[in-house]
Amino acid sequence: MTSWTLVSGLYKHFPVEIFYTRRHVISLFHPNYASICSSFCFLQFNCSSPARKMAMKLAATSAIRSFASSSGISGSSAFARCLHASAGSKKIVGVFYKANEYAAKNPNFLGCAEGALGIREWLESQGHQYIVTDDKEGPNCELEKHIPDLHVLISTPFHPAYVTEERIKRAKNLQLLLTAGVGSDHIDLKAAAAAGLTVAEVTGSNVVSVAEDELMRILILVRNFLPGYHQVITGEWNVAGIAYRAYDLEGKTVGTVGAGRIGRLLLQRLKPFNCNLLYHDRLKMDPELENQTGAKFEEDLDAMLPKCDIVVINTPLTEQTRGLFNKDKIAKMKKGVLIVNNARGAIMDTQAVVDACSSGQIGGYSGDVWYPQPAPKDHPWRYMPNQAMTPHISGTTIDAQLRYAAGVKDMLDRYFKGEEFPLQNYIVKEGKIASQYL
Amino acid sequence: MTSWTLVSGLYKHFPVEIFYTRRHVISLFHPNYASICSSFCFLQFNCSSPARKMAMKLAATSAIRSFASSSGISGSSAFARCLHASAGSKKIVGVFYKANEYAAKNPNFLGCAEGALGIREWLESQGHQYIVTDDKEGPNCELEKHIPDLHVLISTPFHPAYVTEERIKRAKNLQLLLTAGVGSDHIDLKAAAAAGLTVAEVTGSNVVSVAEDELMRILILVRNFLPGYHQVITGEWNVAGIAYRAYDLEGKTVGTVGAGRIGRLLLQRLKPFNCNLLYHDRLKMDPELENQTGAKFEEDLDAMLPKCDIVVINTPLTEQTRGLFNKDKIAKMKKGVLIVNNARGAIMDTQAVVDACSSGQIGGYSGDVWYPQPAPKDHPWRYMPNQAMTPHISGTTIDAQLRYAAGVKDMLDRYFKGEEFPLQNYIVKEGKIASQYL
Repeated sequence: MTSWTLVSGLYKHFPVEIFYTRRHVISLFHPNYASICSSFCFLQFNCSSPARKMAMKLAATSAIRSFASSSGISGSSAFARCLHASAGSKKIVGVFYKANEYAAKNPNFLGCAEGALGIREWLESQGHQYIVTDDKEGPNCELEKHIPDLHVLISTPFHPAYVTEERIKRAKNLQLLLTAGVGSDHIDLKAAAAAGLTVAEVTGSNVVSVAEDELMRILILVRNFLPGYHQVITGEWNVAGIAYRAYDLEGKTVGTVGAGRIGRLLLQRLKPFNCNLLYHDRLKMDPELENQTGAKFEEDLDAMLPKCDIVVINTPLTEQTRGLFNKDKIAKMKKGVLIVNNARGAIMDTQAVVDACSSGQIGGYSGDVWYPQPAPKDHPWRYMPNQAMTPHISGTTIDAQLRYAAGVKDMLDRYFKGEEFPLQNYIVKEGKIASQYL
Repeated sequence: MTSWTLVSGLYKHFPVEIFYTRRHVISLFHPNYASICSSFCFLQFNCSSPARKMAMKLAATSAIRSFASSSGISGSSAFARCLHASAGSKKIVGVFYKANEYAAKNPNFLGCAEGALGIREWLESQGHQYIVTDDKEGPNCELEKHIPDLHVLISTPFHPAYVTEERIKRAKNLQLLLTAGVGSDHIDLKAAAAAGLTVAEVTGSNVVSVAEDELMRILILVRNFLPGYHQVITGEWNVAGIAYRAYDLEGKTVGTVGAGRIGRLLLQRLKPFNCNLLYHDRLKMDPELENQTGAKFEEDLDAMLPKCDIVVINTPLTEQTRGLFNKDKIAKMKKGVLIVNNARGAIMDTQAVVDACSSGQIGGYSGDVWYPQPAPKDHPWRYMPNQAMTPHISGTTIDAQLRYAAGVKDMLDRYFKGEEFPLQNYIVKEGKIASQYL
């Protein structure tokens, strides 16, 4: 089963190559310039653990650096390029939601299993194998069949292939994990980093989509839309039953927990609504953006929450944010607070949200993220009062699909050519996890 | 049944008074200044038709003007003040939606029949009679009982008391029709003008409320929210069934038919969404506002419609706009156009909308206005595909209620004192209908 990988790339203007498997680095050499080749060291490892594999790659780095140094070349900017660059036929697996009868309804519907990001012809014309499935759970699922020999796994947050440490261990050929979209918490990032894998998303591909959707949900809750819609379809007409808790957004206090790319786009879109805008983040925004949105920095989350009529969650799911909004945190909020969460379901304590919606502590809860996904039929958020939930959809509009399909294709192209990805796309690079996931 | 009305007010600094009934003007005189009084003419009319009644008031105007002129006072700005000013106990009837069990749920719920705009104590302490009901239809309804002797009728667009020519004829004491909110098309304005009635709304009281709601509806349609919500409550999970026709708002072309107060607020709120914004109106906006929103003027509605992904109706219901969006007009739009209409239901041809939603010519229709209101159980808009309708709610948020309740109180106060209303509030004044209703 062992297959050799030829990693080739440019170190500055010097072409370099490394032959390796997941267990062994055989040689680092420069095939065309004998005089330079002589300065290479030859390495051999037998590394079965993720830590050892990482050590192997770091040693390879060191070898290339020593080569570069002895050749009078400084810097190491092209090293990662060398490590993830890879020639030869690859096995690429994509896990996307199945569209069935909807697949043919829109020629731009690229994000489903049938659309397969629109890259099948391109991949196969270059001799790569491209397996696409939506069957991702359990020991007999389609994904499991390909774990032992896939090189690249593409998935989405909307129908995530959960990449556990155990799966990483069994994926001997795995080099690259791509998220078509934004949000890679379906991957055990620590395990991926330890195994020396590269994890990347199409950063920015659907941030506008998600921010727009958040503003929609804020309005749906503030204005009490759904009870009105229910009246319509059930033949009723009772304006009072809606109006007694319908408000304008104008003048209300909206706080975002997290003001990264999505949070900032939301604040910009909220600006003309004349709200009081607050944000909590690790860092203050630059003053220009703060002035542009008029949002005020709240260093202390617990100090911000009681001020908010509406709280929007815009933070990634990390060890720090998992279950952050538990009973205690929700109790710190205003009675009747409205919560919008398009970030990740697991940031909330599921039962605490149900209880607070039932008691009225939460006046409305809307979001498109659940844990797990797909949400089971008996997920309690489906049936709690004052919810305005959907399946995970906000980042997979047709526009977003076109952008993240293009972004995935671009990264695969760079991967085949041994080129760097756009820097902001990396979630795990050279054993390091991106700061927002720490 | 005839009751005399004493209309008193200031003509510039000169107090003047007119005694009149709906049929007779007895005298115009100045009680305190004998020397000035002598210059008054004494009038008597027996005018049974609305046109004659109007003629009576115009003659009174003329008399006051001739008095003013002979006294060396120029201008007539205070004349209307004199005509609608009215001392003595008044019978005021308010028609609002009933809240029943919801009435007690919010202390600011002033817009319902139980809340009665929060002016009962104030009115009764001044000796006025204040009848409030939601029972407004049919020959035996509560409203009908008071038509013969009410002086002031207050109603709302959310639960409109339809004021027909026939009702105006029978309302012998009626002087003032107030709309708590914006939109007075439930009143036969021509008949009201001919009868010399004053019609006024609380202009601006809920324009923000409606504009916000329109943006919510745009997003609900563009992003295909409701199918996702339905999946949640029915235990399903099918992202593809939503995503295949979910889009970003960014980059789409949004055209508003009408760019008055609400249309402009909508354009301002749309600005950060990076859409192509178009507007059709009788007049171009001032260049500053056009620059601020980036919206382009479209003089020809039929030229604008085919460009729009989303059409928002923001025009009042008038003779010109009734049924404007019929089969032909809808056929001019893009296939799959999304329509938002919080203006008035009767601007649309009901069946044409149903047919176009069924055929896919309209991709989504959302609004809160119907004809008639309340919409009957069998109104076809309740059951057509891709609708996101609610009962008439957008302008009756709690915030809007507080504003229009205050606005009605202010106008009643001015009416009792014989003072002018804010000019922008007048819909019918001195026999003239405001330009937006022509």
